[in-house]
Amino acid sequence: MQSEPGIVTRRDLLSLIGALSGSAAMYQAMTSLGFTADSGYKGPIKLDGDPKGASVLILGAGLAGMTAALELRKAGYRVRILEFNNRPGGRNWTLRRGDSYTELGGHRQTCEFEEGLYFNPGPWRIPYHHRGLLDYCKRLGVALEPFIQLNHNAFLHSSDAFGGVPQRIRDIKTDFQGHLSELLAKVVQQDKLDEAVSKQDREMLLSALRSWGALDGNYAYKANLISGNFRGYAKGPGGGLDAKPVPGEPINLSDMVKSRLWRHLQNFAAYRFQSTMFQPVGGMDMIGKAFAREVGDLIDYERKVTAIKQDDAGVTVTYVDLKAPATPQLAKADWCICTIPLSILSQIPINVGSRMKAAIDAVSYTSSVKVGLQFKRRFWEEDEAIYGGITYTDLPIGQIAYPNSGYNTARKGILLGAYVIDNPVAYELTSMLPSERVTLAVELGSRIHPQYRHEYENGISVAWHRVPFTLGCAGYWTDQTRAEHYDNLCQIDGRIVLAGEHASYIPAWQEGAILSSLDAVARLHDRVVKR
Amino acid sequence: MQSEPGIVTRRDLLSLIGALSGSAAMYQAMTSLGFTADSGYKGPIKLDGDPKGASVLILGAGLAGMTAALELRKAGYRVRILEFNNRPGGRNWTLRRGDSYTELGGHRQTCEFEEGLYFNPGPWRIPYHHRGLLDYCKRLGVALEPFIQLNHNAFLHSSDAFGGVPQRIRDIKTDFQGHLSELLAKVVQQDKLDEAVSKQDREMLLSALRSWGALDGNYAYKANLISGNFRGYAKGPGGGLDAKPVPGEPINLSDMVKSRLWRHLQNFAAYRFQSTMFQPVGGMDMIGKAFAREVGDLIDYERKVTAIKQDDAGVTVTYVDLKAPATPQLAKADWCICTIPLSILSQIPINVGSRMKAAIDAVSYTSSVKVGLQFKRRFWEEDEAIYGGITYTDLPIGQIAYPNSGYNTARKGILLGAYVIDNPVAYELTSMLPSERVTLAVELGSRIHPQYRHEYENGISVAWHRVPFTLGCAGYWTDQTRAEHYDNLCQIDGRIVLAGEHASYIPAWQEGAILSSLDAVARLHDRVVKR
Repeated sequence: MQSEPGIVTRRDLLSLIGALSGSAAMYQAMTSLGFTADSGYKGPIKLDGDPKGASVLILGAGLAGMTAALELRKAGYRVRILEFNNRPGGRNWTLRRGDSYTELGGHRQTCEFEEGLYFNPGPWRIPYHHRGLLDYCKRLGVALEPFIQLNHNAFLHSSDAFGGVPQRIRDIKTDFQGHLSELLAKVVQQDKLDEAVSKQDREMLLSALRSWGALDGNYAYKANLISGNFRGYAKGPGGGLDAKPVPGEPINLSDMVKSRLWRHLQNFAAYRFQSTMFQPVGGMDMIGKAFAREVGDLIDYERKVTAIKQDDAGVTVTYVDLKAPATPQLAKADWCICTIPLSILSQIPINVGSRMKAAIDAVSYTSSVKVGLQFKRRFWEEDEAIYGGITYTDLPIGQIAYPNSGYNTARKGILLGAYVIDNPVAYELTSMLPSERVTLAVELGSRIHPQYRHEYENGISVAWHRVPFTLGCAGYWTDQTRAEHYDNLCQIDGRIVLAGEHASYIPAWQEGAILSSLDAVARLHDRVVKR
Repeated sequence: MQSEPGIVTRRDLLSLIGALSGSAAMYQAMTSLGFTADSGYKGPIKLDGDPKGASVLILGAGLAGMTAALELRKAGYRVRILEFNNRPGGRNWTLRRGDSYTELGGHRQTCEFEEGLYFNPGPWRIPYHHRGLLDYCKRLGVALEPFIQLNHNAFLHSSDAFGGVPQRIRDIKTDFQGHLSELLAKVVQQDKLDEAVSKQDREMLLSALRSWGALDGNYAYKANLISGNFRGYAKGPGGGLDAKPVPGEPINLSDMVKSRLWRHLQNFAAYRFQSTMFQPVGGMDMIGKAFAREVGDLIDYERKVTAIKQDDAGVTVTYVDLKAPATPQLAKADWCICTIPLSILSQIPINVGSRMKAAIDAVSYTSSVKVGLQFKRRFWEEDEAIYGGITYTDLPIGQIAYPNSGYNTARKGILLGAYVIDNPVAYELTSMLPSERVTLAVELGSRIHPQYRHEYENGISVAWHRVPFTLGCAGYWTDQTRAEHYDNLCQIDGRIVLAGEHASYIPAWQEGAILSSLDAVARLHDRVVKR
């Protein structure tokens, strides 16, 4: 500590810096990392050229419709939005205390959550690569917080595996990886790998397997402090006396493979679910509300569109005011951006060409059900050290997701008690009464968290095929319908262009709605200014 | 939608529930999941029995000292703490605008960060299984938010690999896993696996490899939308026309293995780094401050201990008041809990038995350096879609960590521009002037983020071997020193017991300090009430 650090270290500094080569080449390489290519969003849209007072009627005040309204008004258009609901956002939707919701079939639920708690029946997470949505969140001042997709301490559960006992994700993940690494290391050592791996690479591959698979010096995966360093311990390390950690016994390979719990690991690795994910602070509808702060004055709520007609002069939309439905009314504009879900649009008379009409009729809608449950205490945190994240199960509830806010407090909490999408169980749940879905979610969830029985307070459920404003969760595209109909759906037809998640390659995600809207707006504007 | 959902679904409900077997057995199994065994923390400490006015002198107002003070006063002890610094917390420490810090060697730095920004020179993250620390955070009202350890879009970087171009973690992780799965699948198909995997399990193993490794129908890992679904795309999916995703080309196995970037993947899988991790909202010292709200009245600050003496009557500690250092003073008590780091305690006269003294002298201290850098704009978010998390590099800065708060805003931000621990580079950086460490961090960091050059504003650096109150980062235990000295360090010696992270199996973590303290407190109390 008494030496002259200045003299010693200036030399070190130079040598450290000098040891690093090729910075110029490096910078070129950096720019060619080309981040922007990863995303369909190219930054804030630029609509140059004067629309000369052209008017646009937008159908739907979801994110697609409000994005279009915001950008088109800014570019000089006269804009009006007709919206079916009495609120902005569409599927961007959050339920809180006192909110009422009546599904198709007439069953009405009123949310009884404690003040300050909420449930997102629709979208609930935002990937880091949804650049369009994130940019609007930034521009509109929507505060974000992390959404935990992978919580190593949440569970994977199968009724048929491990006697129905839920397994910690960290155990499945670590043990699966460990066993595979051991198997492969054995093969490498026995020289059974053919030309796939060169002789030179084999030693390094063994090092990699040992590091990554938590193998011991003999390339074995077993109960010891090496595997414990990843999977956790039977008795964790402590302080003072009697503090030594004791490793737990890994799950054996055969049980692991047969359990099929490994299939859930995809949900933590997929691009769309990778960390860092986000949620708006306070509920997903903070985004819809932020858009409405900008374009709310353009929206007429509770307007149900019943016909869409275009001719050389413009577009005429027939609608009813739901508060005075007896007398249909007309709205006219030069152009129309229609964001009505295809499930509903296919039932509305619209004079577009046969190709677009065929496309509108071709897309079926994904079925999805969500249940939100309020509990007296955050037992998942207190008893089980689960903070945020998702438990996956083969029970008909599909998953249990833990709240990503209010961590480690004595407050109550809302669990997503069921989230079923795109499988037959979703239809089965949809056929139930809302209260029965809630009862089922509590009953089945208690197989994973027995605390449900004492801690449950109230719940609410949304089955998307019974949601009056969408009749389904999201557009469902097969490779075949994409090939046959997608471009026809997205083309401008006369004075009408469609937008929404259904007109994107990111169906069911808010980013799809925004990118689709921006693309429609850009093409429409181009047509207008070139006329 | 016109059917009678009530009738249909009550039957379905029963059949769904009936199909699930053995709930009673299940609940038993659940309780035997035995979560608490995972942690050395057994819940709030219970100190029954009357200490009859016994007094305890605690040396050090870090987390160990303040935990002891809080619990002992509650149990009826007379407690006093002597603390070297002019603030509580010890290594639980946060630097903000206007904070000054003088390191050994006399170099003084004043933090110039913008108001509201901060940097944690010491601990900065809290694992979900640090139950003791989390329980105190809950009891003391410390708000927590997620700390992102794994951000799939951050970088792994080696000067020698890929021409020095940083690689996205998602690419390394996905491609490594994909190639290993392909290799293993090939071996399984060629029937080269011996008895390690039974014939029955092989088909299921192939399914698992295909799912987990993102392999195609022929068990190959290659550029297609299957791998793209995990590693991301050369051109991401969009909305409207021309929106089809284009897959990117995976890194080949040989380059991957040679790059050694796989070794960083451990940092995302290790038990101590697993999601969900936390940080206190606003800085790590929120914890120290919360403790001080409870026990601050017991702390005498700026007291430097110079001798510790015990006899049959009690413990006498000699100290100087740093504001009036000429006259040494004495503090007396029946018992002493000493949390002074061993690096410093080994230099203070203390009359404990030879075994404890040998233990105090045996433990060396880990070297560690951190640098905090302020930038004009959050270019890592804006330009590179990196929100929180850590980039690892083989450059002497070790890592670059991105802030886990203020996401997606136009605010400025602080990066952890260097974090080097437990390797020779840490000593090299320690030997530099603080300003030189900052310069080096900016210079080297710009190899990964060229934006550094234009966006850098100011920085501050802490080299733990120059920190006057610890002379090192944390106790460094080898297997041998553990075997020889650990129990001797932790035993009560007469009227003195030691506590702190150094007296735990979780060195360098705040949880170690707290668990060590609770264990010391429990044993001391037991001795007191049994006298």
